[in-house]
Amino acid sequence: MGHQGNDIRITLIGAGTIGLSFAAFHLSHLSSPSQLTILDTRPDLEEYVRSTLPKFFPDAPISHVTLSNSLPDAVRNASIIQESGSENLPFKKSIWAEVEKHAPQDTLLWSSTSGIPASQQTADMQDKTRLLVVHPYNPPHMMPLLELVPSPQTSADVLTRTQEFWRTRGRVPILLLKEMTGFVANRLAFALLRESIHLVNEGVVNVEELDRVVETSMGPRWAIAGPFKSYHAGGGAGGLEGFFKNIGGTVQKCWDDTGKVNVGEVWEESIFRQAKEQYGVVDLGERDRITKRILDTVEKEKNNE
Amino acid sequence: MGHQGNDIRITLIGAGTIGLSFAAFHLSHLSSPSQLTILDTRPDLEEYVRSTLPKFFPDAPISHVTLSNSLPDAVRNASIIQESGSENLPFKKSIWAEVEKHAPQDTLLWSSTSGIPASQQTADMQDKTRLLVVHPYNPPHMMPLLELVPSPQTSADVLTRTQEFWRTRGRVPILLLKEMTGFVANRLAFALLRESIHLVNEGVVNVEELDRVVETSMGPRWAIAGPFKSYHAGGGAGGLEGFFKNIGGTVQKCWDDTGKVNVGEVWEESIFRQAKEQYGVVDLGERDRITKRILDTVEKEKNNE
Repeated sequence: MGHQGNDIRITLIGAGTIGLSFAAFHLSHLSSPSQLTILDTRPDLEEYVRSTLPKFFPDAPISHVTLSNSLPDAVRNASIIQESGSENLPFKKSIWAEVEKHAPQDTLLWSSTSGIPASQQTADMQDKTRLLVVHPYNPPHMMPLLELVPSPQTSADVLTRTQEFWRTRGRVPILLLKEMTGFVANRLAFALLRESIHLVNEGVVNVEELDRVVETSMGPRWAIAGPFKSYHAGGGAGGLEGFFKNIGGTVQKCWDDTGKVNVGEVWEESIFRQAKEQYGVVDLGERDRITKRILDTVEKEKNNE
Repeated sequence: MGHQGNDIRITLIGAGTIGLSFAAFHLSHLSSPSQLTILDTRPDLEEYVRSTLPKFFPDAPISHVTLSNSLPDAVRNASIIQESGSENLPFKKSIWAEVEKHAPQDTLLWSSTSGIPASQQTADMQDKTRLLVVHPYNPPHMMPLLELVPSPQTSADVLTRTQEFWRTRGRVPILLLKEMTGFVANRLAFALLRESIHLVNEGVVNVEELDRVVETSMGPRWAIAGPFKSYHAGGGAGGLEGFFKNIGGTVQKCWDDTGKVNVGEVWEESIFRQAKEQYGVVDLGERDRITKRILDTVEKEKNNE
């Protein structure tokens, strides 16, 4: 069974926000919506998909998608099974053990988990070579990044086929060589978030001002060039080394002085309240519309169109 | 003397990259290029400005700008004096003491320093109320952010006039209520940089892959919504509080496990080399062209044009 052609068959396990956002992505790339199956045990599945999927894909051809509440039926002919279910290890272990009984032998198995390593999810499987984490950045129907996090048992062939799937669809799969908590993207973002909380907690700026700082400086910069490339450029002819030669002393002072706030401490009340008062309910439609324009702009400009 | 009208007169001290980038900004906002003076003691000042300024502003009306190597002459009629000279405390202290002797009494005094607090720069001045740090994000002719960092002596009137100057020119001045090393933007970026170095040093991804992660996820996201707003949206109806309720445990695990690399340690050799091999000399023209497109896109979309 081929995996890149018209005979590809994708089964999504879990019709939550992430699952349906992936559904929107796949529907805009498959030859036919009949190649997609969505498995979820919620009793109102059809109604829920009909009301939610159009938020990600306004004209989604929902009536041609197979909706199922039977795992054996849903996975029997799948060439790719992508799980975006509950973040719960016993659930994932049992799902994969069950999938293994009913899916074809060369089906690719992907988990969208943001925290449970493939090496734990495969605990009850016979063949642990096919499963890896394919962790999206929210919302997956829009953001290019996929973090691929194999277990030590994942086979090279599975990795290659997974990378090729995403690359041929214009996405950016990045292979992580170690299973670390939070993977890469969240670890980086959380490091910046911690310092953000520290600075607000110290009274240097408020929540809205801190966001404005990021939006008007490193946000747009990092949309084009990540931190290493940015500082390599900032170092002039000396590159990243020149950058550290020039201001390494200041960098180290900031590092020595980094905020060490923790979850559950006293900053929470004031910062949660500020966010609520400042932002209320965020308009995700606006966010996604602007996100798409920015991604299109970067893409076009990088190709010098 | 007014400060927002046609009679505004700006003197830039220091014709380095930051100074000339500010020159480009001011030239595109002043009624006449004759309102701008650039002070620098380098012997080839005119030649240098003629060759460098057009990189930031292709058709800069250079012949109408006053170029000076005499501080008393350059500051005598200035309504704003903006210093972007050497990052060296004795230099800045002596410059401001000298400026004070020759400039009008209500002239605004701004330093572009990224590290030397206004409270130290004013040490030898009689009137310490007029000086504050106005720290740009590179390149200043393009990036909206200005971090305003007063000393405890800076007057409210000076702050108000400074904020108004930048706001009326479409920029985003953010007032910092404490003088902290690195201010806000650099502290945040350096926190993320430290974790970036840690992850590359641990062999999870390489330099180029780490940059790609940022460029395809939090970069474009944070160009639209800073970390608090993003996670407030990520928490759904529960907002930022809901976000921490859902995945605060993972956040804390990442914080507990944050990389503690330092400047001068063994990671430098490999990471500096990777940056050099991967990026060589970065094309700043391309970077700035795409940056401008992104900033324009965000601006237009936020105004729903």
